[in-house]
Amino acid sequence: MATSNEIGLFEAIYTMRAIRDFKPDPVPDDLLRKVIEAAGQAPSGGNRQPWKFIVIRGQQGKDKVAELVRIGQDRRPAAGNRPTGTAAPVADFAGLLRAAPVLIIVCAIKPATEGPQTVGPFGQTFPAIQNLLLAARGLGLGGTITTSFREMEREFREYLRIPDNLTPTCLIPLGYPSGAGRNKHGRKSRLPVEEIAFEEKVGQRISF
Amino acid sequence: MATSNEIGLFEAIYTMRAIRDFKPDPVPDDLLRKVIEAAGQAPSGGNRQPWKFIVIRGQQGKDKVAELVRIGQDRRPAAGNRPTGTAAPVADFAGLLRAAPVLIIVCAIKPATEGPQTVGPFGQTFPAIQNLLLAARGLGLGGTITTSFREMEREFREYLRIPDNLTPTCLIPLGYPSGAGRNKHGRKSRLPVEEIAFEEKVGQRISF
Repeated sequence: MATSNEIGLFEAIYTMRAIRDFKPDPVPDDLLRKVIEAAGQAPSGGNRQPWKFIVIRGQQGKDKVAELVRIGQDRRPAAGNRPTGTAAPVADFAGLLRAAPVLIIVCAIKPATEGPQTVGPFGQTFPAIQNLLLAARGLGLGGTITTSFREMEREFREYLRIPDNLTPTCLIPLGYPSGAGRNKHGRKSRLPVEEIAFEEKVGQRISF
Repeated sequence: MATSNEIGLFEAIYTMRAIRDFKPDPVPDDLLRKVIEAAGQAPSGGNRQPWKFIVIRGQQGKDKVAELVRIGQDRRPAAGNRPTGTAAPVADFAGLLRAAPVLIIVCAIKPATEGPQTVGPFGQTFPAIQNLLLAARGLGLGGTITTSFREMEREFREYLRIPDNLTPTCLIPLGYPSGAGRNKHGRKSRLPVEEIAFEEKVGQRISF
């Protein structure tokens, strides 16, 4: 059972929104540590813990990363040609990154060998990333997943000294939600369970 | 703040273990529904919700899936040649699947187009899978992620009628933990934060 000062699991799951705009307040060290420690509690094949987190708190690093994202964004196809599942670019997303108190870059550690059972860099790290975002929500912080550095991956790797055995999978800006627009935690719009689940075989309606 | 009958977020994150062996008790419908609903609360690019869940509760379906996993396991390379990040096969894992109260197969919905920013089927579904496992933990249930059907993906797709626009990413057996061996929730062994995080650039020691 939860202690009275800890957020409930389901409350966190149901109210954790993507937060892209932050108050200027810094993230206290102990909370930042908790967020990353929670990420590291995720499951992985053989408990290999195939993840690393690069934490950027200095303005110079944030400016450089934001600049690479901006260059990548300028090179991106216009709306009609954008891959599905990628959100419309937020106007001046680079500016939001520059102003975020913390940037976290998540990297997957490449396995020595890969086969049909391995889940690739995204599968390896996304359970940890979900823990990270839930923990942030639980501590009053917020963040969002972005992959908008990937057009500039070579320069990004060079600046952050990411070696070949690591694959950067996402960038998470972290801070206290500004409260502007949707930048606050709260209920989310999702499909009903009956539209995302099937009974026994694809296409068969489920009832609980 | 958590209500007194809801598990705390951090308690769930820190004590959610992989559960592979189950009590014979069925999973109540309302709890199964909660687990899948929690999965669907995960974030996704543009809130596309690119996931589907096939729920198998009938013995015939469980037997068939277990049989495909057994055939795949027999074809797998011996320990020395196994891809890193895949756990040693549990003896008679197929038998455990047959006896699990519920099997859930998670599928990613293929985006119409893919680009450097898209995260692939594993990245699309693993945040939802982590929510699912945490929710299970919160309700006293347990499960684990396995990809051990992938050697038999063609037959698996055919049996479950999985169309080309869906990619099965993992299989999760679900039920009440048996309590045998490590099949109960509790603290886990993980690296300290200082070994998974870097300050500003890869290789630079972080302090909080």
